[in-house]
Amino acid sequence: MAGSTFGTIFKITTWGESHGKGIGVVIDGCPAGLSLSEEDIQCFLDRRKPGQSRYATQRKENDSVEILSGVFEGKTTGTPLSMLVWNQDQKSKDYSEIASYYRPGHADFTFDAKYGFRDYRGGGRSSGRETIGRVAAGAVAAKLLQQLGITCIAYTKSIGPVEAKSFDVTSIGKNPLFMPDENAAKEAERYLKSCMEQKDSAGGIIECVIDGMPAGIGDPVFEKLDANLAKAIFSIGAVKGFEIGDGFHAAYANGSENNDNFYLSEQNDIKTHTNHSGGVLGGISNGSQIVFRAAVKPTPSIAATQKTVTNSGEEIEISIHGRHDPIIVPRAVVVVESMALLTIADALLLNMSANLEKIRKFYQNP
Amino acid sequence: MAGSTFGTIFKITTWGESHGKGIGVVIDGCPAGLSLSEEDIQCFLDRRKPGQSRYATQRKENDSVEILSGVFEGKTTGTPLSMLVWNQDQKSKDYSEIASYYRPGHADFTFDAKYGFRDYRGGGRSSGRETIGRVAAGAVAAKLLQQLGITCIAYTKSIGPVEAKSFDVTSIGKNPLFMPDENAAKEAERYLKSCMEQKDSAGGIIECVIDGMPAGIGDPVFEKLDANLAKAIFSIGAVKGFEIGDGFHAAYANGSENNDNFYLSEQNDIKTHTNHSGGVLGGISNGSQIVFRAAVKPTPSIAATQKTVTNSGEEIEISIHGRHDPIIVPRAVVVVESMALLTIADALLLNMSANLEKIRKFYQNP
Amino acid sequence: MAGSTFGTIFKITTWGESHGKGIGVVIDGCPAGLSLSEEDIQCFLDRRKPGQSRYATQRKENDSVEILSGVFEGKTTGTPLSMLVWNQDQKSKDYSEIASYYRPGHADFTFDAKYGFRDYRGGGRSSGRETIGRVAAGAVAAKLLQQLGITCIAYTKSIGPVEAKSFDVTSIGKNPLFMPDENAAKEAERYLKSCMEQKDSAGGIIECVIDGMPAGIGDPVFEKLDANLAKAIFSIGAVKGFEIGDGFHAAYANGSENNDNFYLSEQNDIKTHTNHSGGVLGGISNGSQIVFRAAVKPTPSIAATQKTVTNSGEEIEISIHGRHDPIIVPRAVVVVESMALLTIADALLLNMSANLEKIRKFYQNP
Amino acid sequence: MAGSTFGTIFKITTWGESHGKGIGVVIDGCPAGLSLSEEDIQCFLDRRKPGQSRYATQRKENDSVEILSGVFEGKTTGTPLSMLVWNQDQKSKDYSEIASYYRPGHADFTFDAKYGFRDYRGGGRSSGRETIGRVAAGAVAAKLLQQLGITCIAYTKSIGPVEAKSFDVTSIGKNPLFMPDENAAKEAERYLKSCMEQKDSAGGIIECVIDGMPAGIGDPVFEKLDANLAKAIFSIGAVKGFEIGDGFHAAYANGSENNDNFYLSEQNDIKTHTNHSGGVLGGISNGSQIVFRAAVKPTPSIAATQKTVTNSGEEIEISIHGRHDPIIVPRAVVVVESMALLTIADALLLNMSANLEKIRKFYQNP
Repeated sequence: MAGSTFGTIFKITTWGESHGKGIGVVIDGCPAGLSLSEEDIQCFLDRRKPGQSRYATQRKENDSVEILSGVFEGKTTGTPLSMLVWNQDQKSKDYSEIASYYRPGHADFTFDAKYGFRDYRGGGRSSGRETIGRVAAGAVAAKLLQQLGITCIAYTKSIGPVEAKSFDVTSIGKNPLFMPDENAAKEAERYLKSCMEQKDSAGGIIECVIDGMPAGIGDPVFEKLDANLAKAIFSIGAVKGFEIGDGFHAAYANGSENNDNFYLSEQNDIKTHTNHSGGVLGGISNGSQIVFRAAVKPTPSIAATQKTVTNSGEEIEISIHGRHDPIIVPRAVVVVESMALLTIADALLLNMSANLEKIRKFYQNP
Repeated sequence: MAGSTFGTIFKITTWGESHGKGIGVVIDGCPAGLSLSEEDIQCFLDRRKPGQSRYATQRKENDSVEILSGVFEGKTTGTPLSMLVWNQDQKSKDYSEIASYYRPGHADFTFDAKYGFRDYRGGGRSSGRETIGRVAAGAVAAKLLQQLGITCIAYTKSIGPVEAKSFDVTSIGKNPLFMPDENAAKEAERYLKSCMEQKDSAGGIIECVIDGMPAGIGDPVFEKLDANLAKAIFSIGAVKGFEIGDGFHAAYANGSENNDNFYLSEQNDIKTHTNHSGGVLGGISNGSQIVFRAAVKPTPSIAATQKTVTNSGEEIEISIHGRHDPIIVPRAVVVVESMALLTIADALLLNMSANLEKIRKFYQNP
Repeated sequence: MAGSTFGTIFKITTWGESHGKGIGVVIDGCPAGLSLSEEDIQCFLDRRKPGQSRYATQRKENDSVEILSGVFEGKTTGTPLSMLVWNQDQKSKDYSEIASYYRPGHADFTFDAKYGFRDYRGGGRSSGRETIGRVAAGAVAAKLLQQLGITCIAYTKSIGPVEAKSFDVTSIGKNPLFMPDENAAKEAERYLKSCMEQKDSAGGIIECVIDGMPAGIGDPVFEKLDANLAKAIFSIGAVKGFEIGDGFHAAYANGSENNDNFYLSEQNDIKTHTNHSGGVLGGISNGSQIVFRAAVKPTPSIAATQKTVTNSGEEIEISIHGRHDPIIVPRAVVVVESMALLTIADALLLNMSANLEKIRKFYQNP
Repeated sequence: MAGSTFGTIFKITTWGESHGKGIGVVIDGCPAGLSLSEEDIQCFLDRRKPGQSRYATQRKENDSVEILSGVFEGKTTGTPLSMLVWNQDQKSKDYSEIASYYRPGHADFTFDAKYGFRDYRGGGRSSGRETIGRVAAGAVAAKLLQQLGITCIAYTKSIGPVEAKSFDVTSIGKNPLFMPDENAAKEAERYLKSCMEQKDSAGGIIECVIDGMPAGIGDPVFEKLDANLAKAIFSIGAVKGFEIGDGFHAAYANGSENNDNFYLSEQNDIKTHTNHSGGVLGGISNGSQIVFRAAVKPTPSIAATQKTVTNSGEEIEISIHGRHDPIIVPRAVVVVESMALLTIADALLLNMSANLEKIRKFYQNP
């Protein structure tokens, strides 16, 4: 089935495999009149580029984006934005080996079960490179939301047992792990080093915070804002858990702790002092900061010996070598941010038709 | 925006408010030829009916379902199934009070922010009664999946600090909390009693297990099976967290623990001994049991004093009395099960067009 | 597949069969704050009610609508509007005969081919009664568009060889055929009388005109306003042709005749003197009147002898008696109008997100 | 809004402007295992290439397609197929003139009304070049349907007053107008020559025939097969009318003529001798040939003098010179065929979930 499209009004469709000709995305439904350049996209893509630290793969990737349509004289036209990144690294020899067996923790077996065969080169469509399209689209959503005073930032909350204790936004960009806590980052680096020595890998938790979200965005029932965020984040490979606000902690709390009481701000806005809800009540934003977390599993490709089965139905032992990050989290941070931005942008555009009074005003004072 | 529809092929649309004339659902896309009676639906609805224990509200609800269309001579016709439950309890007086202020932890404020006003009677559209439509549809999905050898069961994993230690499927139906562990259930009842004495409420965790799922169901990228389950479960009011397989625990594990190694069964099927993935790899089922958990927040309506704000912008103190469960979890168990059933049914129908060989066979040997 | 839902934002789902318990529709995505009563719906439904003339079936139908949800204190709440009409006429005996064979020109055979069996009572889901849901929804769309200064009117352009020569809007409601030309109406009545005498039926053409449509509504490429109108109108049973503006006539014209030249109105609006385009250029409204026509085939149920085949594969001759209109057109007029209203309403709501400047204004001056 | 996506399961998204970097399409939902090469696509694209006759524009276009993803070792993988055609002709000078005024019969004005500005180069997104993406996708649908024994062919039925009298399928490819009647083609060429001498243009009618369609495909109510064909064909620029089977003629016929009586074939299949319905009853295919026609308006760009208005609100007279076909029809033939193929392919894949018996068989005998 068609599974590569996300969004209702601000709609993206991604395409491309790890070792095909390229990776791309088409954004359909981006409003007209948004200033946009390839630099705007590139700065987002560069955040997922490997080789920024020794805990990310050393392969030379040069993911430079080309805008092929939808921008005229520096502004979006309202018609589809097509963006393309050519794959540099198309030689398949280093991957041909994995064609014959199913790597534990990967989608090799499930792709064969569904489609009868697969593009085995570097994971094909299930490779992390698929996220290039999401991030390119996320960069456009970020520019759009900027115009409405909404910002979104994701960062590494924990790596294995090492959790960020403090929150210093400036330090997020300073360390290769995107942690908002320098000391935790250093400790996490030591932890990853030991994982690599043991031919093993680690997981972690990514947190994302959205500021400036007006109250009243999202829909009741099935299109709840948090439900769409959950789907968006869970659509990222390796994500195994999602929680908003107090999340799983709320399952252990009492109502008196978990409820956020309302008060009136000096501007007479209805606010809450606490934010256990994470900014969403009944699926609709309440004007507080939106805060959620994603649990990311350890990199499944490890050098340690594993048992598996071949296409031809033979049990074997394997040890996966080559260029693999011991941790997915740091490169996934910008992907989480991008999926959140896309979800929020779509919800804001959808929300414009909620209220007759505002529709009448929209059409009567163009 | 239209937020009350769920699914692509097996598509449901729910309608109705807590104190309107009734609650209902339309299922469009249910295959023709499925034997279906009102009893099939009723037995599911009865599982969410309150008054089964003193930890559920005592109000008399008599939610008997009527099938209005889509069934002829005992079988589904392939055209829309419309199901209706009349509301017994339409007098608004006991709710008129809450019209004037915003209950903490409820959607009162966010509905006003979005729509400009709201049906305040008993929570209106954001009431738990909205789930009647989901459960009625879930019952139909269950019958459909039965035909394909797929079963789904949800139960209470924990209530507040009390966790089910053992798993005895027969005891799930025996205690009013739907826990698979009699001793834990008794302990949980004591815990809830103390919550009520303190005018407070509790949360908990629901677990759901799907058996008989073939490998190869679900789609890569945005329509991952686990992403759709995450959205389905998060669309249930009060859910604050979702995880599959090891979930958040995987963020602390190493790859060598988290990967499920493959082996060949005696029937030469490719299987895994462990199930850290929860039955999904790369968004596609791998043939293992699908296992996920949902975190449910405490009932927001509590008798303890809370601070809030009125429509007219006045800060007040409130204490919510009346018939409120101190815990949402037990009544949400069948809702979680229903949303999972709906997600799985849709994924199975969508999957039929994945593979040309099977399509050719389908059309050449009708 | 789920085929009973129409629209993207203003989304309707119809259900019900001719002789089931009832017929209904759920509207999801109707903006909040629209004044709505059952009378608003009923006056639309009454326009499709038979028994208004001797050219419509004489069966007593009393299609009174009930609003079950989505309206509170006289206004739409923004949540799903569920509307229901009970079927009065559920006894199946007069229809049991047609269970055994396939009526020419009807969907009996194709339903069996698709679903394996069918609800044969009065055509089941393919009965004209299915349009009750469309018309009820159309009435809501009409009220919504009224608020934006947009009106829509459909009428009978021709019946068999008899065409309306003049256009007198006041006379549309005065004759049972809904023709805007009294003399043509009288002539058409004579023609229908002769058809009945010959145990035969007639077809005709319905024209629809939309006034007050702003320029800029609709989308390029696949969601062209006229493409969505074409689908909407073609989804009405018995429609065999659709054209907009000059329609098929344009295929015989030259560019110099067919192009509508632009001029500046006194209000400095860009207008056209002619309207060969029918109000749509490149799939987007140009501010002119939208004008389209639908060709409706003759009633397939005729008393004349026809050849057909039975379920059990026997060739037989049949003659269909009972209460059948010799013409579908007059009862379809309000259905055409309703489908047009639904299409236009959805397009207007979708259009709100086209232009960044207007989105910014929308969110910055709430 | 996102208007560049077509289809539910076999879903395509087109992008690109006449004078942007390129034009492309992403097909998502194409089944895995279909043999596909760039040659398969190119032979379709070449049918819309101009310069095949002196009645098509003389500009050098070299539209060679590149498959960027979704094919591995010569077969579709089930993941998105991305196809790209680079634009050769990106210099804007010959088009800069039209930036300042609105061409009658074109979308210049409506794009400005919707988006606030437009890519004016060669019509931008509303250019005929947008159809390159549709045709590339149509070629894939054709290969898929071939596997199921379904073929589709479109041709020129009439040009201006000149109608094809005979039907000789072999001659369709032999004349530059794609008419199935050599004599009519010659006469039409003479007619077009005279149009050009008068600085004018002509319209025409395209007919399309689909063979091998099984009975039972399509859905009742809103997703009728003919309704989706109507939308598909009306989404092609310049189409002003669509009819199926007898179409508008049926509005003048009697039921006794219009009904297709059923009989039993020697293979005991239920057939009809006549085909007034055009192969669809109640929105579902009946196993007959599907036959429909589209009315195409004359090329709006003509050398004759026209009145229009400038961006700056000035009334002017214009005469459009440069490389414009006097007729759109011949180049639109393959586009009509492609849109029909896409509609049919999607309907066939959607239909697989209609019937429980077949679903059970599908999953129980994989």
